[in-house]
Amino acid sequence: MVNDCDTRRGRAFDLVIQGLIVVSLIAFTIETLPNLSPQLVTFLNGLETAIIIAFAAEYLLRIVVAENRFRYIFSFYGLIDLLSIVPSLISAGVDLRTVRTVRLLRLFRTLKFVRYNRAIRRFHDAYVIAREELTLCFIVTMLLLYLSSVDIYYCENEAEPEIFASVFHCFWWSICTITTVGYGDVYPITPGGRFLTGVLLLIGIAIIAAPTGLFASAFVTARQLDDAHRNGPASDKDPRAPFDR
Amino acid sequence: MVNDCDTRRGRAFDLVIQGLIVVSLIAFTIETLPNLSPQLVTFLNGLETAIIIAFAAEYLLRIVVAENRFRYIFSFYGLIDLLSIVPSLISAGVDLRTVRTVRLLRLFRTLKFVRYNRAIRRFHDAYVIAREELTLCFIVTMLLLYLSSVDIYYCENEAEPEIFASVFHCFWWSICTITTVGYGDVYPITPGGRFLTGVLLLIGIAIIAAPTGLFASAFVTARQLDDAHRNGPASDKDPRAPFDR
Amino acid sequence: MVNDCDTRRGRAFDLVIQGLIVVSLIAFTIETLPNLSPQLVTFLNGLETAIIIAFAAEYLLRIVVAENRFRYIFSFYGLIDLLSIVPSLISAGVDLRTVRTVRLLRLFRTLKFVRYNRAIRRFHDAYVIAREELTLCFIVTMLLLYLSSVDIYYCENEAEPEIFASVFHCFWWSICTITTVGYGDVYPITPGGRFLTGVLLLIGIAIIAAPTGLFASAFVTARQLDDAHRNGPASDKDPRAPFDR
Amino acid sequence: MVNDCDTRRGRAFDLVIQGLIVVSLIAFTIETLPNLSPQLVTFLNGLETAIIIAFAAEYLLRIVVAENRFRYIFSFYGLIDLLSIVPSLISAGVDLRTVRTVRLLRLFRTLKFVRYNRAIRRFHDAYVIAREELTLCFIVTMLLLYLSSVDIYYCENEAEPEIFASVFHCFWWSICTITTVGYGDVYPITPGGRFLTGVLLLIGIAIIAAPTGLFASAFVTARQLDDAHRNGPASDKDPRAPFDR
Repeated sequence: MVNDCDTRRGRAFDLVIQGLIVVSLIAFTIETLPNLSPQLVTFLNGLETAIIIAFAAEYLLRIVVAENRFRYIFSFYGLIDLLSIVPSLISAGVDLRTVRTVRLLRLFRTLKFVRYNRAIRRFHDAYVIAREELTLCFIVTMLLLYLSSVDIYYCENEAEPEIFASVFHCFWWSICTITTVGYGDVYPITPGGRFLTGVLLLIGIAIIAAPTGLFASAFVTARQLDDAHRNGPASDKDPRAPFDR
Repeated sequence: MVNDCDTRRGRAFDLVIQGLIVVSLIAFTIETLPNLSPQLVTFLNGLETAIIIAFAAEYLLRIVVAENRFRYIFSFYGLIDLLSIVPSLISAGVDLRTVRTVRLLRLFRTLKFVRYNRAIRRFHDAYVIAREELTLCFIVTMLLLYLSSVDIYYCENEAEPEIFASVFHCFWWSICTITTVGYGDVYPITPGGRFLTGVLLLIGIAIIAAPTGLFASAFVTARQLDDAHRNGPASDKDPRAPFDR
Repeated sequence: MVNDCDTRRGRAFDLVIQGLIVVSLIAFTIETLPNLSPQLVTFLNGLETAIIIAFAAEYLLRIVVAENRFRYIFSFYGLIDLLSIVPSLISAGVDLRTVRTVRLLRLFRTLKFVRYNRAIRRFHDAYVIAREELTLCFIVTMLLLYLSSVDIYYCENEAEPEIFASVFHCFWWSICTITTVGYGDVYPITPGGRFLTGVLLLIGIAIIAAPTGLFASAFVTARQLDDAHRNGPASDKDPRAPFDR
Repeated sequence: MVNDCDTRRGRAFDLVIQGLIVVSLIAFTIETLPNLSPQLVTFLNGLETAIIIAFAAEYLLRIVVAENRFRYIFSFYGLIDLLSIVPSLISAGVDLRTVRTVRLLRLFRTLKFVRYNRAIRRFHDAYVIAREELTLCFIVTMLLLYLSSVDIYYCENEAEPEIFASVFHCFWWSICTITTVGYGDVYPITPGGRFLTGVLLLIGIAIIAAPTGLFASAFVTARQLDDAHRNGPASDKDPRAPFDR
């Protein structure tokens, strides 16, 4: 029941766990709000304790039902399940404030969402197909970011010595510009810097276009591979209609 | 004539109704302008009354010509047609100002545009084909938004306690950053926060690239399915040339 | 020679004309700069006169070599050729300042670039294939822009009455947000407005993804149609290798 | 060993060189930081000298092992290899500050990354397939940028004479707007200018969608060509499985 996500009860179990994860994350988020009332803090602490007990129970249950207990405990998800309880258990004894950052690890628990999804295989196939090109895109983007940071440093450093103080500062500008965020805290004012920005932005469109196009074409191929695999001689494994993919 | 959008008179009827909807929306928009002259207010009120009468007449006509009147009245579009008149009828009797917010429902009337369009089926097919992957993308985006909100909270909260006041405030930053809007009201100033932003933005490009690529590849498949369906044995249903799709 | 863009001399002629167009546009741009020296103004006026003479000569030459002169003069490009000379001829006699806005029409001359390009047919094919879906996308975008403008008006009008003064002002915000420009002159400050913005932005990614995906899939089909046409029985018309497309 | 990147030792050699390039670039970046301690400056100078010696040794080694030494020295990468050493050698003798800008050429060394990658051929194929359309897109984008710059000049010059001072200043606005960066230093305030911006932005989405769609469809074709080539009669050249692309 616990590991079988295809039965009704298995699905219900997963939904309850996922609900608890979301509730614990929301509680954690509310705790960061300034000026909370003491009642709310007490309630959040109680909720946190309840969730830890639930997760500990789930963890023990998973160990009990596991075919190979040793393998489960040291598997990737087994360690994540453990990590999602232990920091909170420790923090329940000691001061909550100082161990708060350890709680970030609790977020990894949400990776469970991903565990149950078949679409990941097609994503992985598409990634494998376009791996070389995506890596090349990444390298070219990095080179472009570095080159434009150095160029803008020489263009703008004299005009705005505070903002474009070093190539590191210029890198912040580069990444905000090429991804077309443009917060407005850093922008060129010299004609040379503006011309360079224009060129960088036109290339930036291509930088955004390339991985999209790559992924689209890779996914077309991944989908065809998946269909060929599904409709092949061993297709009795998945009896769904081809359209229901 | 009223329900048949393929004849000339049916198309003309639809165009008149659509024109009235647009006029009523423009009138509503102008009403929100500050410092309107009293003459203009009087004119807008008169226009509103005329449009309500026209929509009421259309509603009664649709009931009269409906094959199954009961089914039409309680259908999705029947209820929308009713909702587009009733709030205005009530507001005509009482004070206009207070019921103004109810008028927002009138906007649903514009969904009629959508009723007549064949392209929706192909959109729906493409959505069905890529449903799992799009859901996965949405979940991953949400997780990424949450994770980066928590991370930036720890990076920037001390440096800018007013702007990054809680994880909720950081969520506003996350969504403005990953969608590359970058209003400029919230941006990191610490090196750690800026590095995190850079990483988030590079992932953000992939986040934008993935659904685009998914939709493109799904639409290629949807178009082929549509062609196969159209050019199959039952193709006498739609006599248009394959290119005229 | 003048109309034949496949011969060497025809290409050279076109290049000269295109060069002159670009020079005249650059001259026009420089004229808008504040604080120009009198010498530069004199030089720009002389350049302008020379360019008008060259364009007038080109226009007369095109009339002389046209097979059907009457048809050329009243054709689309014939009228554009005329419009690119006449306003400048008039302005040469009267005051330059006041007729300056008419000069904008001269820009249409640059549409000639487009006349010679075969890629337009494939663009047109792709547009025809995806026409219905693109129209639907446009309508949905417009509806979304309107809906979000009305919603943000009710969310933000009280908090920022100056900036979100009417639905028209909110429309400016909507279009800057959904296209992810985010100048930073208009942004929501209330929690409700920020939540609405977040939802709008996530939909906005889909709004940008949809036409891209549509165009990509339409272009795949347009390319296949083009190949089928090219490699069909009448393929002796275009002797280029299939790869050289 | 030096030129053969398929053997283990060849790969190790390349990795060492690439590591040195990255280290030299990081050192150069750190040198631009203001307020460096003298010890760090001394260390960076020492590091720089060590890297130059390593690159000089690599250059001599490449000359020694080259089949045709003359051809290597005057090849594109041969000249880049030389340029990556010579400016630093000169700067070692003279003042470092003044020759700093020459060091930018050292960045070209990083192009070596690109030399080893097979994915470039598929990128090149996709570019060749979509060349005409991409050129057309570029021309239309340039025309649109110019047209909108002129239009916004007439709309906004009176309202904001400082910011929209000339068509050149407006071009800066155009490119920041159409690429959806929106720094927030330049934005329209008149109703006419805002309407124009809205239209430009909606076209801008198409401008970004077109190259992405073009590239995606071109890459689908390029991948098929590559497969046909690989699985054809001469497929014994590359023994990898088709999926491992």
